[in-house]
Amino acid sequence: MSHAPPEALERRHREIRAVCAARSLDALVVTSLPNILYLTNFTGSAGIVVITPEQLHFITDSRYLTVAQALRDALNGSPGLNVIPVDAAYDSTLVALLQTMPSAQVGFESGHVTVARHRQLTEWLASNTSAPSLVGCEGIVEGARLFKDQYELRTLRMAAAMLSAVAVDVVEEVRRGRTEREIAFAIDFRLRRAGFEKPAFDTIVASGPNAALPHAHPGERTLNEGDLVVLDFGGVYDSYCVDLTRTVSVGPADTRAREVYSAVLAAHDAAVGAVRPGRSRFAIDQAARDELTRRGLGEAFGHGTGHGLGIEVHEDPRISRRRPALDLADDPVEPGMVFTIEPGAYLPGWGGVRIEDDVVVTDGGVEVLTTTDTDLVEI
Amino acid sequence: MSHAPPEALERRHREIRAVCAARSLDALVVTSLPNILYLTNFTGSAGIVVITPEQLHFITDSRYLTVAQALRDALNGSPGLNVIPVDAAYDSTLVALLQTMPSAQVGFESGHVTVARHRQLTEWLASNTSAPSLVGCEGIVEGARLFKDQYELRTLRMAAAMLSAVAVDVVEEVRRGRTEREIAFAIDFRLRRAGFEKPAFDTIVASGPNAALPHAHPGERTLNEGDLVVLDFGGVYDSYCVDLTRTVSVGPADTRAREVYSAVLAAHDAAVGAVRPGRSRFAIDQAARDELTRRGLGEAFGHGTGHGLGIEVHEDPRISRRRPALDLADDPVEPGMVFTIEPGAYLPGWGGVRIEDDVVVTDGGVEVLTTTDTDLVEI
Repeated sequence: MSHAPPEALERRHREIRAVCAARSLDALVVTSLPNILYLTNFTGSAGIVVITPEQLHFITDSRYLTVAQALRDALNGSPGLNVIPVDAAYDSTLVALLQTMPSAQVGFESGHVTVARHRQLTEWLASNTSAPSLVGCEGIVEGARLFKDQYELRTLRMAAAMLSAVAVDVVEEVRRGRTEREIAFAIDFRLRRAGFEKPAFDTIVASGPNAALPHAHPGERTLNEGDLVVLDFGGVYDSYCVDLTRTVSVGPADTRAREVYSAVLAAHDAAVGAVRPGRSRFAIDQAARDELTRRGLGEAFGHGTGHGLGIEVHEDPRISRRRPALDLADDPVEPGMVFTIEPGAYLPGWGGVRIEDDVVVTDGGVEVLTTTDTDLVEI
Repeated sequence: MSHAPPEALERRHREIRAVCAARSLDALVVTSLPNILYLTNFTGSAGIVVITPEQLHFITDSRYLTVAQALRDALNGSPGLNVIPVDAAYDSTLVALLQTMPSAQVGFESGHVTVARHRQLTEWLASNTSAPSLVGCEGIVEGARLFKDQYELRTLRMAAAMLSAVAVDVVEEVRRGRTEREIAFAIDFRLRRAGFEKPAFDTIVASGPNAALPHAHPGERTLNEGDLVVLDFGGVYDSYCVDLTRTVSVGPADTRAREVYSAVLAAHDAAVGAVRPGRSRFAIDQAARDELTRRGLGEAFGHGTGHGLGIEVHEDPRISRRRPALDLADDPVEPGMVFTIEPGAYLPGWGGVRIEDDVVVTDGGVEVLTTTDTDLVEI
C-alpha cells in the first residue's frame, strides 16, 4: 500500500470525474496499474478500477482482498469505494459490473488495453442488447499525474535527498580492478540500505568504451586507470521513482575526457537553467543540445534530455527533441511537473559521459531535487 | 545480450516462419520484448522485430545500435538479420518498412499491441493505397516459447540449482527480532551474490498473520516466536527466471501449524506426482486441491497451482482450476514445459503456508529442477 492521504485521493477522484463529465463519459475503466495506484494507493500486481460519478469500484482477486479492504477502510472519507472480488476472471467480472450500466458511455484506457483484450470485452458485452459502449480514451489519469500534488512532491523530495546521499557514497565503490557488475551490485545494496524499496530500474555501470552505450548492462569488464565510468541508478521510495547519473574518472582525466565532461555539464546546466513555467519542452531540450553542438558533440547526443518521474520511472513530460516527422504538440512545462535533465555524449570506441538530476517546475522557476555536486570526481 | 547459440535462434526463426506460412502471413511484427529476446538474444528495453520468410528486420534506437550490430555479427549464420535504426519514432520507422511490402498480410501481436497504438499504425498505413493489411495474431512466439529447447533447459537447470542453494542459506536470515523487510533485503543480497542478475520479482517475506496474504509486501513487522514465515523469491539468470517458496517456523511449530504445513506439502507432492506428458493442466491443479480439500483447507487455497517459467516469471502454461464460466481449453502439458507447483493455504488472522518448486515435463514424467528439502524447518 502506498500512503497518499485520503484528501489527496479524493482530490484525484474529483479531477478524474470532472474530465469524464466533460467528455460525456458515465464511467472510466482504469486498467493501468500505476493509474490504479494513483487513485487508490493499491500497490498489488492485479486490479481494475471503474470510476463513476458516485462510486469507485475496485475489482481484485483473492490474493489482494485483505489489502483491498484495508484500502476501503483507509478511504472511509472517499465516496463509495466498492471492493468487488474477481469471480471467474478479471474481465468477466468487469463485464458483469458494466452490464449493470445499460446504455452507458464507458471510457477505457486505449493506451493500456491490448487489441485482443478489447475484442474479448466487446464480444462479451455484445451479448446484451442494452450493453454499454466502450469509448477509447488516452491520458485521462496520466493528465492528472503530470502535476504532482503536495503529498507527491514531499515524497519525491525525500526520495531525491536519499538518492543524493547514496550518490555521494557510491563513489567509494568505484575502484580499479573491480568489475562493472560488482559495482552495480554494491550500488543496489546501498540503495536498499538507504531505505529504498528497490532500484527503480536496472542499475547502469558502464566503464571505458562501454560508456558509449547509453543503456549498457553492467558486465565483467574491470575498471582501468583512465576510464570514465557512467553510474546511472535510481530508487523507489513509497512507490515514487527518482533517478540520478554521475560520471567519474578512474585516476586523472585526460584532456579529451575533461572537454567532453565540461561540454555535458554545460548542457546539463543550460537545460536546468531553461526550466521555468510556460517554457516549451523542446526549448529545454534544445538548450542542452546547443551547448553540445557548439562544442562539436551534437551528433554524440542521441537521446532526449529528460523524462518525467513519479509512480513510473519514465512518464510524461518527455523533454525531447522536436521531430518534424511526428508533429508532436509542443506542450509547455508547468508548476508541479517533475522530470530528469540528463544530457550525455557518447563516442563509440572511446566512451561517454552523462550527468543527470531531477527537477520540479516551481511557480518561480525550477527546484533541483537531487543536490549532489556535479564537478568531475577523479578517484 | 542473452546467450542462446545461433543454431537455437535459427531453429526458433524456422518455427515462427512455419507458423506464419500456415496462417498465410507474409510477415509478423513482434513487439513483445520477451518475444524479441527469444528471437534475437536482445535484452534492451526497446525494439521491434519484423520476421519475413527471407529476413529478420530488427528496428532499434541509437542507444542500442552497437548492441544490435553485435547481435547481427553473432547471428552471422542466421538468414538476413537486418538492423534498422529508428528514424523519427519506432512506429513510423515500422510503417516505413511495412510500406515496402505492398498488399502483404502482416501479422501483429494483438495481445501486446494497445488499441491506441494499433489505431495509429492503421492510420499511418492507410495513407498508402497498396498498404499491407494488419492481421491480429495471438500467441505465435509464445507458442514456441512454451517448449523449452536444450539451451533453455540447461539455463533453467543451472538457475534452479543456484536458487536451491540460496534457499538453503536464507534460512539463516530468518531470526527473531528481525523485520520482514530486513530479511527480504538479505535474500536479495544473497540472490545477487549467488550470480543472479536480479530478483525475478519483488521478494515476499510474510510472517505471522501477514502470511495469510499470498502477495504481501515485506514490511516493518518483527518476527516473533511461533510465527510461520513465507519466503517467496526468485532470480533471473542469463535472462531466465526461476521461483521458489519455503515456509519456515520461528521456534517449534504448534499442532495447527504442523497440520496446515503437512496439508500443503501433501498438495505439493500430489501435484508434482501428477505431472507427466499428456496430463491435463486442470488435473494437476486438482491433485493439489483434492489434498487440501480432504483436510478441510480447500477454501483456503484461492490461487492456481502454478505458472510457466522462462524469459518471463509468469508465462504459459498456467496450472489452474477449471472455471466453467470461462470455457478455457484443457491443454495437456508436454515434454519441455517448465512451470511452478506452488499450492498454499491462507487463513485470515492466523497466517499461511506456501511451498513452491519448479518442474519440467520430461518424456518419462517430471523432473524437479529446484532440489531443496521440503521438510518444515523450525529455527
